[in-house]
Amino acid sequence: MSGRLYVIGTGPGNPAQTTPEALSAVADAQEFYGYGPYLDRLTLRGDQIRHVSDNREELDRAKVALQRAAAGVNVCVVSGGDPGVFAMAAAVCEAIDHGPAEWRGVDLVVVPGITAMLAVAARIGAPLGHDFCAISLSDNLKPWPLIERRLRAVAEAGLVIALYNPISKARPWQLGKAFDIVRAILPADTAIIFGRAAGRPDERMTVARLADAQASQADMATCVIIGSAETRVIAREGRPDLVYTPRFIREEAK
Amino acid sequence: MSGRLYVIGTGPGNPAQTTPEALSAVADAQEFYGYGPYLDRLTLRGDQIRHVSDNREELDRAKVALQRAAAGVNVCVVSGGDPGVFAMAAAVCEAIDHGPAEWRGVDLVVVPGITAMLAVAARIGAPLGHDFCAISLSDNLKPWPLIERRLRAVAEAGLVIALYNPISKARPWQLGKAFDIVRAILPADTAIIFGRAAGRPDERMTVARLADAQASQADMATCVIIGSAETRVIAREGRPDLVYTPRFIREEAK
Repeated sequence: MSGRLYVIGTGPGNPAQTTPEALSAVADAQEFYGYGPYLDRLTLRGDQIRHVSDNREELDRAKVALQRAAAGVNVCVVSGGDPGVFAMAAAVCEAIDHGPAEWRGVDLVVVPGITAMLAVAARIGAPLGHDFCAISLSDNLKPWPLIERRLRAVAEAGLVIALYNPISKARPWQLGKAFDIVRAILPADTAIIFGRAAGRPDERMTVARLADAQASQADMATCVIIGSAETRVIAREGRPDLVYTPRFIREEAK
Repeated sequence: MSGRLYVIGTGPGNPAQTTPEALSAVADAQEFYGYGPYLDRLTLRGDQIRHVSDNREELDRAKVALQRAAAGVNVCVVSGGDPGVFAMAAAVCEAIDHGPAEWRGVDLVVVPGITAMLAVAARIGAPLGHDFCAISLSDNLKPWPLIERRLRAVAEAGLVIALYNPISKARPWQLGKAFDIVRAILPADTAIIFGRAAGRPDERMTVARLADAQASQADMATCVIIGSAETRVIAREGRPDLVYTPRFIREEAK
């Protein structure tokens, strides 16, 4: 009989943002597959087994987890944030789609989590209070010209933009190029949020004007939120600025 | 001395999806402001006071909550889902932006939650596994022609689209019109997900082809997810279809 395959999200790293549903899944699983730093967020019993793999080996990890679940083991695949947002749930579905028929019989349970942009937005106000989008800058999964076209389209359409995977050693220039693209469309004082490690001890939230924003203000643990022309910054004495995007637009834009 | 103003999200309604952080905020607050069905999700002590208001009175509710917090009371404003996504966090920021100076001194704490599109996506596979956006169809907050332009822009750009507030008695035709708009852009067999009341006892998940999708399949408790041309449906014997959007696009689209 097939085991159950949980695909969970821990949230961004603050244990108080991990849901009881995710903890129940952890309690019910025997084997755990994931990137080491995400597995390190779990408290496991002595009889539970960790299988650490590199962050780039998502499809291989999904296949091994499906094999084990098909063999009758209750397995847990662990993502940070939400597993459905640029994370393991799509890799597991992809493996099922192209894998042996028996993998379709596995009892798959995806457990949602707080994704980075929501945690960052909460720390800074309400920048996602109006229409918004989430775009990954990881161009090993799609061609860079497509990313450029998408950035132009959503900036012109007035959506706030949350950028995932903004920068890494292998992708040093993409975020700077993304800022250049939106600079041609949005006002110079559009708010840019660098939301690093939201809710973790090493959290760092920075707000910049688009004209001044530098790619070097982000690292791999950062979710970058690019405001729209409507996004507003509220200065507060003795407290960090609040950034929010109003719920309404009174007049037809442009 | 100013009280603290929490703005929390309960998640979509499954208590196992409410974070410990949200429950801590509830424990710390004396007065609660929100739409009745969201307040009903909380278990309150006898000394905690509920102030129920209609779902459309967001700005007035925010102002009253700020007044009470400024007067020294610990207050909790309650949203379903995530408070930063088409919900109370933006209304509170808006009230601060245009309100008396003392409201800027209130200790504002926004607590993120699982927003509807994440819960729906988890129940159905991984439709948000690639670039996506969230658009509210509520045209009392913005002009309908702007919504149409945004729908065209994001569908043409290849983003999966999560529609919030898709239909109500006051907005009976907008969702049908939205389907018409994307039908002119996306393939007839694009997957449409009607995700109703995810995680609640009255949950109902339906997948339709774009050509067949009807606005009447949605109600006020539904989050509609419109796939992209890349979104795939996996048939499974004895189990519901899985829907996912692959993480990668190998070739330049169009």
